[in-house]
Amino acid sequence: MIENASALFNRITHGVYVIAVANGSEQNAFTAAWVMQVSFAPPMIAFSINHGHYSYKLLQASGACTVNVLGQDHLAIAVHFGRSGVKKKMSTYRWQAGKTVAPVLSDSLAYFDCKLSHTTDAGDHKIAVCEVIDAAELNTGWPLLYSQTDNMDGSSNLYKS
Amino acid sequence: MIENASALFNRITHGVYVIAVANGSEQNAFTAAWVMQVSFAPPMIAFSINHGHYSYKLLQASGACTVNVLGQDHLAIAVHFGRSGVKKKMSTYRWQAGKTVAPVLSDSLAYFDCKLSHTTDAGDHKIAVCEVIDAAELNTGWPLLYSQTDNMDGSSNLYKS
Repeated sequence: MIENASALFNRITHGVYVIAVANGSEQNAFTAAWVMQVSFAPPMIAFSINHGHYSYKLLQASGACTVNVLGQDHLAIAVHFGRSGVKKKMSTYRWQAGKTVAPVLSDSLAYFDCKLSHTTDAGDHKIAVCEVIDAAELNTGWPLLYSQTDNMDGSSNLYKS
Repeated sequence: MIENASALFNRITHGVYVIAVANGSEQNAFTAAWVMQVSFAPPMIAFSINHGHYSYKLLQASGACTVNVLGQDHLAIAVHFGRSGVKKKMSTYRWQAGKTVAPVLSDSLAYFDCKLSHTTDAGDHKIAVCEVIDAAELNTGWPLLYSQTDNMDGSSNLYKS
């Protein structure tokens, strides 16, 4: 067991994102911090996702997602999409169409519209490796850091020996 | 092709790290930004690595690495290990022993001592998925953000259509 794991892993710098998925009439979105770029050409990003969640099923079914960058003023958005079991979760915020079937969060600083390439195992999560087929800046501002969210998701309790 | 890709991908927040590897008497280390946590239990991290580089060969041969977190005062370290073909690259900085064969950078804010689980393709890079078997804080300070390094690695030229 790693002593003080939660504080140590907070030394790894992550932003805060809303990842959105859709399949037919079904849509969902969730807050994520574990996102990184992984390739220049083609441009690709990867994120780690809880494979027990509804969004993972929609991602697998549609093969598409958007990764929407949250800014310093977007803590409330991060908290909203960090909850599960919320009714009408999507309709609280505005969405717009991208190139894939996945919705784009209009309030985000920037979005990456992605096609899923493949997934790989990563302990209690799966890594989704995605090709970015479109991206744009939507609003100005500085990206929110996960370290600024003060354990909003209770993640400090999730480290086990 | 994505317009203004370099600026857009800078909206994804990354820290700055020195990843160190060793195999027998061979050692190497390189600066990386594309690092994220991917699992709580077991604790795991992933990074994206140029698979043409010497360090990738050592990583594959030994199955171990350390991920060392750079702080706000460590831009010179980032620049040093961001260069390739440097003679006596390792001896400029102090290293200490960890639990695996990979050396730990004594000046880092914190380190993660890792066993390689597996790799997966990611465009012009490979993603290395690693289990963290030990970690500790070594120095106080705030993590350096990749966005603060001002294109030190010339990466803005690496996006192709």
